[in-house]
Amino acid sequence: MALVHHPVLNRNGDIVAAAVTNLDLHDIARAARTYGVKAVYVVTPLEDQKILAERIVDHWINGIGAAYNPRRREALELIRIQDSLEGVLSDMARRGAGTPRTVATTARSRNRSIGHHMLKEKMAGGTPYLLILGTAWGLAEEIFDSADFILDPIKGMSEYNHLSVRSAASILFDRLLGDRGHGESGDR
Amino acid sequence: MALVHHPVLNRNGDIVAAAVTNLDLHDIARAARTYGVKAVYVVTPLEDQKILAERIVDHWINGIGAAYNPRRREALELIRIQDSLEGVLSDMARRGAGTPRTVATTARSRNRSIGHHMLKEKMAGGTPYLLILGTAWGLAEEIFDSADFILDPIKGMSEYNHLSVRSAASILFDRLLGDRGHGESGDR
Repeated sequence: MALVHHPVLNRNGDIVAAAVTNLDLHDIARAARTYGVKAVYVVTPLEDQKILAERIVDHWINGIGAAYNPRRREALELIRIQDSLEGVLSDMARRGAGTPRTVATTARSRNRSIGHHMLKEKMAGGTPYLLILGTAWGLAEEIFDSADFILDPIKGMSEYNHLSVRSAASILFDRLLGDRGHGESGDR
Repeated sequence: MALVHHPVLNRNGDIVAAAVTNLDLHDIARAARTYGVKAVYVVTPLEDQKILAERIVDHWINGIGAAYNPRRREALELIRIQDSLEGVLSDMARRGAGTPRTVATTARSRNRSIGHHMLKEKMAGGTPYLLILGTAWGLAEEIFDSADFILDPIKGMSEYNHLSVRSAASILFDRLLGDRGHGESGDR
């Protein structure tokens, strides 16, 4: 997956570069590791934000965090930092992960979006997929234009739909990669 | 649901009172609001932690946060602060919400646990349910002893299971209350 910090929208709909957040990296890496996601790309072109992300990861992989909490290290090892989605695709190719189908996510209803169940079926085919999530007020339009698929928004029980990107990533992993808890323990 | 800060375990298995975390309240309240959860009880007996939780909620409900982001207010309005699970049950009774079936959650496999799908079916019956999540290293044993149900751990694709409580709450709401994204947009 890719956690995009630029280009994303601010509350006014302007394109901005959002700040890297410590807890986004931790929560999303832990969920990614739980669901067998291969890599979490942190996408930002800002040098100071790349350095911040590298410091967080380094603390838990090589620093005192690694000894304090080795399970956190296992999660944060999934994080890779790139300038752009193009950089993500190049890195995947370089690592032999092939060319993924790209899936843009959104909290709003859009044209040509596909359901979670349908995407899960497609993903079972073996082709690599890159799930793209935006920070701040969501991905910029250009990312939807270039994505192979746009995923339906997550709908709960109400019209309210303002999940954190941490919650959205966790729910998407569970919907697309989880075993959904059906029948796993029967009638006990 | 109840987000329990005491009694919970620390990394050594001792019973402790965990600190209230700003982002737990925000993320879980937003997810709860999205999925139609009626209330998010923050359970802590510590006076300073209760004051902290109240300040966070007050900032977004009555303070400048309410004007800055009214949608955040809609979420944080769900939060109620109580000393203990007994206090939660009393508060629910006082508000006419009845006596709920209590469901303790855990990241570990345990005896007498039930699957997510089965719990979802039970919940459809109309009886109120109280979903109990622990902070820190999870709920203390006494909570499992007294709960009506223990929910199966969330399993991903790997043996790794160290989700944040924010991720776990989000996934549980989606599993128990979501429409699962099946067929919502068909074959577009």
